[in-house]
Amino acid sequence: MSRWTFYTAPATCALATHITLHEAGADFTLAKLDFGAQQQQSAEYLKLNPKGRVPALVTEDGVLTETPALLAFIAQRFPEARLAPLDDPFRFAQMQEFNSYLASTMHVAHAHKRRGARWVDDAAAIEAMQRKVPQTMRACAELIERRLDGPWVLGERYSAADAYLYTIAGWLEGDGVDTSTLPRLLAHRARMNERPAVKKALAELPN
Amino acid sequence: MSRWTFYTAPATCALATHITLHEAGADFTLAKLDFGAQQQQSAEYLKLNPKGRVPALVTEDGVLTETPALLAFIAQRFPEARLAPLDDPFRFAQMQEFNSYLASTMHVAHAHKRRGARWVDDAAAIEAMQRKVPQTMRACAELIERRLDGPWVLGERYSAADAYLYTIAGWLEGDGVDTSTLPRLLAHRARMNERPAVKKALAELPN
Repeated sequence: MSRWTFYTAPATCALATHITLHEAGADFTLAKLDFGAQQQQSAEYLKLNPKGRVPALVTEDGVLTETPALLAFIAQRFPEARLAPLDDPFRFAQMQEFNSYLASTMHVAHAHKRRGARWVDDAAAIEAMQRKVPQTMRACAELIERRLDGPWVLGERYSAADAYLYTIAGWLEGDGVDTSTLPRLLAHRARMNERPAVKKALAELPN
Repeated sequence: MSRWTFYTAPATCALATHITLHEAGADFTLAKLDFGAQQQQSAEYLKLNPKGRVPALVTEDGVLTETPALLAFIAQRFPEARLAPLDDPFRFAQMQEFNSYLASTMHVAHAHKRRGARWVDDAAAIEAMQRKVPQTMRACAELIERRLDGPWVLGERYSAADAYLYTIAGWLEGDGVDTSTLPRLLAHRARMNERPAVKKALAELPN
Protein backbone atom coordinates (compact mmCIF):
# COMPACT_ATOMS: atom_id res chain seq x y z
CA MET A 1 0.00 0.00 0.00
CA SER A 2 1.38 3.39 -0.97
CA ARG A 3 1.35 6.20 1.54
CA TRP A 4 -1.93 8.12 1.68
CA THR A 5 -2.30 11.92 1.83
CA PHE A 6 -4.92 13.33 4.16
CA TYR A 7 -6.24 16.84 3.54
CA THR A 8 -7.57 18.57 6.62
CA ALA A 9 -7.97 21.93 8.34
CA PRO A 10 -8.18 22.92 12.03
CA ALA A 11 -11.58 22.98 13.77
CA THR A 12 -13.39 20.99 11.06
CA CYS A 13 -15.12 17.63 11.01
CA ALA A 14 -11.96 16.21 9.40
CA LEU A 15 -10.67 15.65 12.95
CA ALA A 16 -12.80 12.48 13.11
CA THR A 17 -10.99 10.95 10.14
CA HIS A 18 -7.62 12.18 11.42
CA ILE A 19 -8.14 10.42 14.74
CA THR A 20 -9.36 7.27 12.98
CA LEU A 21 -6.31 7.15 10.71
CA HIS A 22 -4.16 7.10 13.87
CA GLU A 23 -6.40 4.52 15.56
CA ALA A 24 -5.83 2.34 12.47
CA GLY A 25 -2.08 2.89 12.47
CA ALA A 26 -2.32 4.09 8.85
CA ASP A 27 0.73 5.49 7.09
CA PHE A 28 -0.25 8.93 5.80
CA THR A 29 1.01 12.43 5.10
CA LEU A 30 -0.91 15.28 6.68
CA ALA A 31 -1.78 18.13 4.29
CA LYS A 32 -3.09 21.16 6.16
CA LEU A 33 -5.26 23.61 4.25
CA ASP A 34 -5.45 27.23 5.36
CA PHE A 35 -9.16 28.09 5.24
CA GLY A 36 -8.30 31.72 6.14
CA ALA A 37 -6.41 31.92 2.83
CA GLN A 38 -9.25 30.00 1.07
CA GLN A 39 -6.86 27.21 0.08
CA GLN A 40 -9.81 24.80 -0.09
CA GLN A 41 -11.04 26.85 -3.07
CA SER A 42 -7.72 26.89 -4.95
CA ALA A 43 -7.71 25.49 -8.48
CA GLU A 44 -5.20 22.84 -7.42
CA TYR A 45 -7.34 21.57 -4.54
CA LEU A 46 -10.60 21.74 -6.49
CA LYS A 47 -9.05 19.41 -9.07
CA LEU A 48 -8.57 16.91 -6.27
CA ASN A 49 -11.87 17.61 -4.48
CA PRO A 50 -14.42 19.61 -6.52
CA LYS A 51 -16.49 20.12 -3.37
CA GLY A 52 -13.82 22.43 -1.94
CA ARG A 53 -14.12 20.97 1.53
CA VAL A 54 -12.31 18.71 3.93
CA PRO A 55 -11.74 15.87 4.68
CA ALA A 56 -10.25 14.37 1.53
CA LEU A 57 -8.07 11.26 1.48
CA VAL A 58 -5.84 10.50 -1.47
CA THR A 59 -5.37 6.74 -1.69
CA GLU A 60 -3.65 4.49 -4.21
CA ASP A 61 -7.06 3.96 -5.87
CA GLY A 62 -8.26 7.57 -5.92
CA VAL A 63 -9.64 10.35 -3.74
CA LEU A 64 -12.34 9.79 -1.11
CA THR A 65 -14.42 12.40 0.71
CA GLU A 66 -17.35 12.50 3.19
CA THR A 67 -16.67 11.53 6.79
CA PRO A 68 -19.08 8.56 7.12
CA ALA A 69 -17.60 6.97 3.97
CA LEU A 70 -14.03 7.57 5.14
CA LEU A 71 -14.62 6.14 8.61
CA ALA A 72 -16.11 2.91 7.25
CA PHE A 73 -13.36 2.71 4.61
CA ILE A 74 -10.53 3.01 7.13
CA ALA A 75 -12.22 0.43 9.37
CA GLN A 76 -12.53 -2.00 6.44
CA ARG A 77 -8.95 -1.45 5.25
CA PHE A 78 -7.53 -2.02 8.75
CA PRO A 79 -9.72 -4.81 10.13
CA GLU A 80 -7.14 -5.72 12.80
CA ALA A 81 -7.70 -2.28 14.39
CA ARG A 82 -11.33 -3.28 15.11
CA LEU A 83 -12.77 0.16 14.36
CA ALA A 84 -16.18 -1.13 13.23
CA PRO A 85 -18.27 -4.31 13.71
CA LEU A 86 -17.33 -5.59 10.26
CA ASP A 87 -18.72 -9.10 10.70
CA ASP A 88 -22.21 -8.07 11.77
CA PRO A 89 -24.26 -6.13 9.18
CA PHE A 90 -26.78 -4.95 11.77
CA ARG A 91 -24.16 -3.62 14.17
CA PHE A 92 -22.25 -2.09 11.26
CA ALA A 93 -25.48 -0.41 10.18
CA GLN A 94 -25.94 0.96 13.69
CA MET A 95 -22.52 2.59 13.46
CA GLN A 96 -23.38 3.97 10.05
CA GLU A 97 -26.78 5.20 11.24
CA PHE A 98 -25.06 7.12 14.00
CA ASN A 99 -22.46 8.58 11.63
CA SER A 100 -25.12 9.52 9.10
CA TYR A 101 -27.10 11.36 11.78
CA LEU A 102 -24.00 13.33 12.78
CA ALA A 103 -23.28 14.21 9.13
CA SER A 104 -26.75 15.09 7.90
CA THR A 105 -28.43 16.45 11.03
CA MET A 106 -26.02 17.53 13.77
CA HIS A 107 -23.19 18.87 11.60
CA VAL A 108 -25.81 20.60 9.44
CA ALA A 109 -27.34 22.24 12.54
CA HIS A 110 -23.88 23.52 13.50
CA ALA A 111 -23.16 24.80 9.99
CA HIS A 112 -26.04 27.25 10.27
CA LYS A 113 -23.91 29.27 12.66
CA ARG A 114 -20.97 30.15 10.41
CA ARG A 115 -21.92 28.76 7.00
CA GLY A 116 -25.40 30.24 6.69
CA ALA A 117 -24.48 31.76 3.30
CA ARG A 118 -24.74 28.26 1.88
CA TRP A 119 -28.53 28.47 2.18
CA VAL A 120 -29.51 32.16 2.20
CA ASP A 121 -28.24 35.38 0.73
CA ASP A 122 -29.42 38.09 3.10
CA ALA A 123 -27.82 39.12 6.37
CA ALA A 124 -31.01 39.17 8.46
CA ALA A 125 -31.75 35.54 7.56
CA ILE A 126 -28.20 34.53 8.42
CA GLU A 127 -28.64 36.12 11.84
CA ALA A 128 -31.96 34.33 12.26
CA MET A 129 -30.19 31.05 11.56
CA GLN A 130 -27.47 31.80 14.08
CA ARG A 131 -30.04 32.49 16.79
CA LYS A 132 -31.50 29.00 16.55
CA VAL A 133 -28.21 27.05 16.58
CA PRO A 134 -28.06 26.62 20.40
CA GLN A 135 -31.55 25.08 20.29
CA THR A 136 -30.98 22.71 17.34
CA MET A 137 -27.57 21.60 18.61
CA ARG A 138 -29.01 20.99 22.07
CA ALA A 139 -31.82 18.85 20.59
CA CYS A 140 -29.26 16.73 18.73
CA ALA A 141 -27.07 16.41 21.82
CA GLU A 142 -30.01 15.36 23.98
CA LEU A 143 -31.08 12.68 21.51
CA ILE A 144 -27.55 11.26 21.67
CA GLU A 145 -27.26 11.68 25.45
CA ARG A 146 -30.36 9.52 25.95
CA ARG A 147 -29.01 6.63 23.88
CA LEU A 148 -25.39 6.77 25.04
CA ASP A 149 -25.62 3.96 27.58
CA GLY A 150 -22.17 2.40 27.25
CA PRO A 151 -18.69 3.80 27.48
CA TRP A 152 -18.76 4.03 23.66
CA VAL A 153 -21.36 4.79 21.00
CA LEU A 154 -21.84 1.09 20.23
CA GLY A 155 -21.66 0.01 23.87
CA GLU A 156 -18.63 -1.88 25.17
CA ARG A 157 -16.59 -1.66 21.98
CA TYR A 158 -14.91 1.46 20.64
CA SER A 159 -15.65 2.27 16.98
CA ALA A 160 -14.94 5.02 14.47
CA ALA A 161 -18.30 6.57 15.46
CA ASP A 162 -16.68 7.64 18.73
CA ALA A 163 -14.12 9.81 16.97
CA TYR A 164 -16.93 11.40 14.99
CA LEU A 165 -19.08 12.05 18.07
CA TYR A 166 -16.05 13.50 19.89
CA THR A 167 -15.49 15.88 16.97
CA ILE A 168 -19.05 17.15 16.53
CA ALA A 169 -19.92 17.24 20.25
CA GLY A 170 -16.73 19.24 20.73
CA TRP A 171 -18.55 22.14 19.09
CA LEU A 172 -21.43 22.26 21.62
CA GLU A 173 -20.06 24.90 23.98
CA GLY A 174 -19.00 27.15 21.10
CA ASP A 175 -22.52 26.79 19.72
CA GLY A 176 -24.03 28.05 22.96
CA VAL A 177 -25.08 24.74 24.51
CA ASP A 178 -24.69 24.30 28.26
CA THR A 179 -23.13 20.83 28.45
CA SER A 180 -23.30 20.55 32.24
CA THR A 181 -26.63 18.73 31.84
CA LEU A 182 -25.13 16.26 29.36
CA PRO A 183 -23.03 14.07 31.68
CA ARG A 184 -22.73 11.09 29.35
CA LEU A 185 -21.42 13.24 26.51
CA LEU A 186 -18.91 14.87 28.87
CA ALA A 187 -17.75 11.48 30.15
CA HIS A 188 -17.39 10.28 26.56
CA ARG A 189 -15.25 13.33 25.76
CA ALA A 190 -13.06 12.67 28.79
CA ARG A 191 -12.56 9.02 27.73
CA MET A 192 -11.67 10.13 24.21
CA ASN A 193 -9.15 12.67 25.51
CA GLU A 194 -7.20 9.78 27.07
CA ARG A 195 -6.75 7.89 23.79
CA PRO A 196 -3.28 8.13 22.23
CA ALA A 197 -4.77 8.57 18.72
CA VAL A 198 -6.73 11.63 19.89
CA LYS A 199 -3.67 13.14 21.58
CA LYS A 200 -1.60 12.51 18.47
CA ALA A 201 -4.14 14.10 16.10
CA LEU A 202 -4.57 17.16 18.31
CA ALA A 203 -0.81 17.56 18.69
CA GLU A 204 -0.39 17.48 14.90
CA LEU A 205 -3.25 19.88 14.27
CA PRO A 206 -4.53 21.81 17.31
CA ASN A 207 -8.27 22.26 17.05
CA MET B 1 -35.26 -14.23 8.98
CA SER B 2 -38.50 -12.77 10.27
CA ARG B 3 -40.46 -10.39 8.11
CA TRP B 4 -39.32 -6.78 8.32
CA THR B 5 -41.58 -3.73 8.63
CA PHE B 6 -40.69 -0.67 6.59
CA TYR B 7 -42.05 2.72 7.67
CA THR B 8 -42.35 5.24 4.88
CA ALA B 9 -44.39 8.17 3.56
CA PRO B 10 -45.04 9.46 0.04
CA ALA B 11 -42.64 11.97 -1.54
CA THR B 12 -39.87 11.42 0.99
CA CYS B 13 -36.32 10.10 0.73
CA ALA B 14 -37.64 6.77 2.04
CA LEU B 15 -38.38 5.91 -1.61
CA ALA B 16 -34.68 5.02 -2.03
CA THR B 17 -34.87 2.35 0.65
CA HIS B 18 -38.25 1.14 -0.61
CA ILE B 19 -36.82 0.57 -4.10
CA THR B 20 -33.74 -1.11 -2.65
CA LEU B 21 -35.82 -3.51 -0.56
CA HIS B 22 -37.52 -4.62 -3.78
CA GLU B 23 -34.19 -4.83 -5.66
CA ALA B 24 -33.02 -7.16 -2.87
CA GLY B 25 -36.18 -9.27 -2.98
CA ALA B 26 -36.65 -8.64 0.75
CA ASP B 27 -39.77 -9.86 2.52
CA PHE B 28 -41.29 -6.85 4.24
CA THR B 29 -44.53 -5.19 5.29
CA LEU B 30 -45.08 -1.63 4.14
CA ALA B 31 -46.24 0.76 6.88
CA LYS B 32 -47.38 4.07 5.43
CA LEU B 33 -47.34 7.10 7.70
CA ASP B 34 -49.66 10.02 7.03
CA PHE B 35 -47.49 13.12 7.41
CA GLY B 36 -50.59 15.29 6.90
CA ALA B 37 -51.97 13.81 10.12
CA GLN B 38 -48.52 14.09 11.77
CA GLN B 39 -48.37 10.33 12.34
CA GLN B 40 -44.57 10.52 12.36
CA GLN B 41 -44.88 12.51 15.60
CA SER B 42 -47.29 10.10 17.31
CA ALA B 43 -46.21 8.66 20.66
CA GLU B 44 -46.34 5.17 19.19
CA TYR B 45 -44.04 5.99 16.28
CA LEU B 46 -41.64 8.07 18.39
CA LYS B 47 -41.13 5.03 20.61
CA LEU B 48 -39.93 3.21 17.51
CA ASN B 49 -38.01 6.13 15.96
CA PRO B 50 -37.38 9.06 18.33
CA LYS B 51 -36.33 11.20 15.36
CA GLY B 52 -39.93 11.27 14.10
CA ARG B 53 -38.86 10.79 10.49
CA VAL B 54 -38.80 8.19 7.76
CA PRO B 55 -37.37 5.82 6.66
CA ALA B 56 -37.32 3.37 9.56
CA LEU B 57 -36.85 -0.37 9.14
CA VAL B 58 -37.88 -2.76 11.90
CA THR B 59 -35.69 -5.87 11.67
CA GLU B 60 -35.34 -8.97 13.83
CA ASP B 61 -32.39 -7.25 15.57
CA GLY B 62 -33.91 -3.81 16.06
CA VAL B 63 -34.86 -0.60 14.29
CA LEU B 64 -32.59 1.10 11.75
CA THR B 65 -32.88 4.63 10.33
CA GLU B 66 -30.89 6.94 8.02
CA THR B 67 -30.90 6.19 4.29
CA PRO B 68 -27.14 5.67 3.74
CA ALA B 69 -27.03 3.16 6.61
CA LEU B 70 -30.13 1.34 5.36
CA LEU B 71 -28.88 1.07 1.78
CA ALA B 72 -25.56 -0.46 2.83
CA PHE B 73 -27.34 -2.75 5.30
CA ILE B 74 -29.75 -4.13 2.71
CA ALA B 75 -26.87 -4.64 0.27
CA GLN B 76 -24.89 -6.54 2.91
CA ARG B 77 -27.85 -8.67 4.00
CA PHE B 78 -28.68 -9.63 0.39
CA PRO B 79 -25.25 -10.07 -1.20
CA GLU B 80 -26.67 -12.15 -4.07
CA ALA B 81 -28.63 -9.09 -5.25
CA ARG B 82 -25.31 -7.29 -5.89
CA LEU B 83 -26.50 -3.89 -4.70
CA ALA B 84 -23.07 -2.69 -3.57
CA PRO B 85 -19.41 -3.55 -4.31
CA LEU B 86 -19.10 -5.53 -1.08
CA ASP B 87 -15.73 -7.12 -1.86
CA ASP B 88 -13.88 -3.89 -2.65
CA PRO B 89 -13.54 -1.40 0.24
CA PHE B 90 -12.59 1.46 -2.09
CA ARG B 91 -15.54 0.96 -4.44
CA PHE B 92 -17.84 0.45 -1.46
CA ALA B 93 -16.51 3.75 -0.05
CA GLN B 94 -17.26 5.46 -3.36
CA MET B 95 -20.87 4.33 -3.09
CA GLN B 96 -21.00 5.53 0.49
CA GLU B 97 -19.36 8.84 -0.40
CA PHE B 98 -22.05 9.42 -3.00
CA ASN B 99 -24.84 8.47 -0.59
CA SER B 100 -23.39 10.65 2.14
CA TYR B 101 -23.27 13.64 -0.22
CA LEU B 102 -26.94 13.12 -1.11
CA ALA B 103 -27.90 12.86 2.57
CA SER B 104 -25.86 15.69 4.06
CA THR B 105 -25.68 18.19 1.18
CA MET B 106 -28.31 17.68 -1.54
CA HIS B 107 -31.20 16.49 0.65
CA VAL B 108 -30.33 19.27 3.11
CA ALA B 109 -30.43 21.86 0.30
CA HIS B 110 -33.89 20.57 -0.67
CA ALA B 111 -35.12 20.64 2.92
CA HIS B 112 -34.65 24.40 3.06
CA LYS B 113 -37.68 24.73 0.85
CA ARG B 114 -40.34 23.16 3.04
CA ARG B 115 -38.56 22.37 6.30
CA GLY B 116 -36.97 25.76 6.94
CA ALA B 117 -38.50 25.87 10.43
CA ARG B 118 -35.92 23.30 11.44
CA TRP B 119 -33.26 26.05 11.35
CA VAL B 120 -35.00 29.40 11.79
CA ASP B 121 -38.05 30.75 13.58
CA ASP B 122 -39.10 33.80 11.59
CA ALA B 123 -41.10 33.85 8.39
CA ALA B 124 -38.86 36.26 6.47
CA ALA B 125 -35.86 34.00 6.97
CA ILE B 126 -37.85 30.97 5.86
CA GLU B 127 -38.72 32.81 2.65
CA ALA B 128 -35.08 33.80 2.17
CA MET B 129 -34.18 30.11 2.41
CA GLN B 130 -36.80 29.13 -0.12
CA ARG B 131 -35.48 31.67 -2.62
CA LYS B 132 -32.05 30.06 -2.71
CA VAL B 133 -33.19 26.43 -3.12
CA PRO B 134 -33.17 26.47 -6.97
CA GLN B 135 -29.56 27.65 -6.88
CA THR B 136 -28.26 25.20 -4.25
CA MET B 137 -30.11 22.24 -5.80
CA ARG B 138 -28.76 23.16 -9.23
CA ALA B 139 -25.20 23.30 -7.88
CA CYS B 140 -25.59 19.81 -6.39
CA ALA B 141 -27.13 18.48 -9.60
CA GLU B 142 -24.32 19.92 -11.73
CA LEU B 143 -21.65 18.39 -9.54
CA ILE B 144 -23.33 15.00 -10.01
CA GLU B 145 -23.99 15.54 -13.73
CA ARG B 146 -20.26 16.10 -14.33
CA ARG B 147 -19.23 12.83 -12.66
CA LEU B 148 -22.08 10.64 -13.96
CA ASP B 149 -20.13 9.04 -16.81
CA GLY B 150 -21.62 5.54 -16.80
CA PRO B 151 -25.14 4.25 -17.03
CA TRP B 152 -25.08 4.03 -13.22
CA VAL B 153 -23.54 6.02 -10.37
CA LEU B 154 -20.68 3.55 -10.01
CA GLY B 155 -20.26 3.04 -13.75
CA GLU B 156 -21.29 -0.21 -15.38
CA ARG B 157 -22.79 -1.77 -12.29
CA TYR B 158 -26.08 -0.77 -10.68
CA SER B 159 -25.90 -0.11 -6.94
CA ALA B 160 -28.15 1.14 -4.16
CA ALA B 161 -26.75 4.63 -4.81
CA ASP B 162 -28.81 4.72 -8.00
CA ALA B 163 -32.08 4.39 -6.11
CA TYR B 164 -30.98 7.22 -3.84
CA LEU B 165 -29.97 9.48 -6.72
CA TYR B 166 -33.25 8.74 -8.50
CA THR B 167 -35.14 9.76 -5.36
CA ILE B 168 -33.33 13.03 -4.61
CA ALA B 169 -32.91 14.11 -8.26
CA GLY B 170 -36.64 13.49 -8.65
CA TRP B 171 -37.14 16.64 -6.60
CA LEU B 172 -35.22 18.95 -8.96
CA GLU B 173 -38.11 20.25 -11.07
CA GLY B 174 -40.28 20.85 -8.00
CA ASP B 175 -37.37 22.78 -6.52
CA GLY B 176 -37.24 25.11 -9.52
CA VAL B 177 -34.31 23.55 -11.38
CA ASP B 178 -34.46 23.40 -15.19
CA THR B 179 -33.30 19.84 -15.83
CA SER B 180 -33.17 20.20 -19.64
CA THR B 181 -29.46 21.02 -19.29
CA LEU B 182 -28.80 17.93 -17.17
CA PRO B 183 -29.00 15.17 -19.82
CA ARG B 184 -27.13 12.52 -17.86
CA LEU B 185 -29.41 12.90 -14.87
CA LEU B 186 -32.47 12.69 -17.12
CA ALA B 187 -31.11 9.57 -18.84
CA HIS B 188 -30.41 8.04 -15.44
CA ARG B 189 -33.99 8.74 -14.39
CA ALA B 190 -35.31 7.13 -17.57
CA ARG B 191 -33.20 4.01 -16.95
CA MET B 192 -34.45 3.82 -13.38
CA ASN B 193 -38.08 4.13 -14.49
CA GLU B 194 -37.65 0.88 -16.44
CA ARG B 195 -36.56 -1.18 -13.43
CA PRO B 196 -39.23 -3.50 -12.00
CA ALA B 197 -38.27 -2.58 -8.42
CA VAL B 198 -38.92 1.09 -9.13
CA LYS B 199 -42.27 0.35 -10.76
CA LYS B 200 -43.23 -1.85 -7.84
CA ALA B 201 -42.31 0.75 -5.20
CA LEU B 202 -44.15 3.54 -7.02
CA ALA B 203 -47.21 1.35 -7.51
CA GLU B 204 -47.29 0.57 -3.79
CA LEU B 205 -46.77 4.18 -2.76
CA PRO B 206 -47.26 6.80 -5.49
CA ASN B 207 -44.77 9.60 -5.01
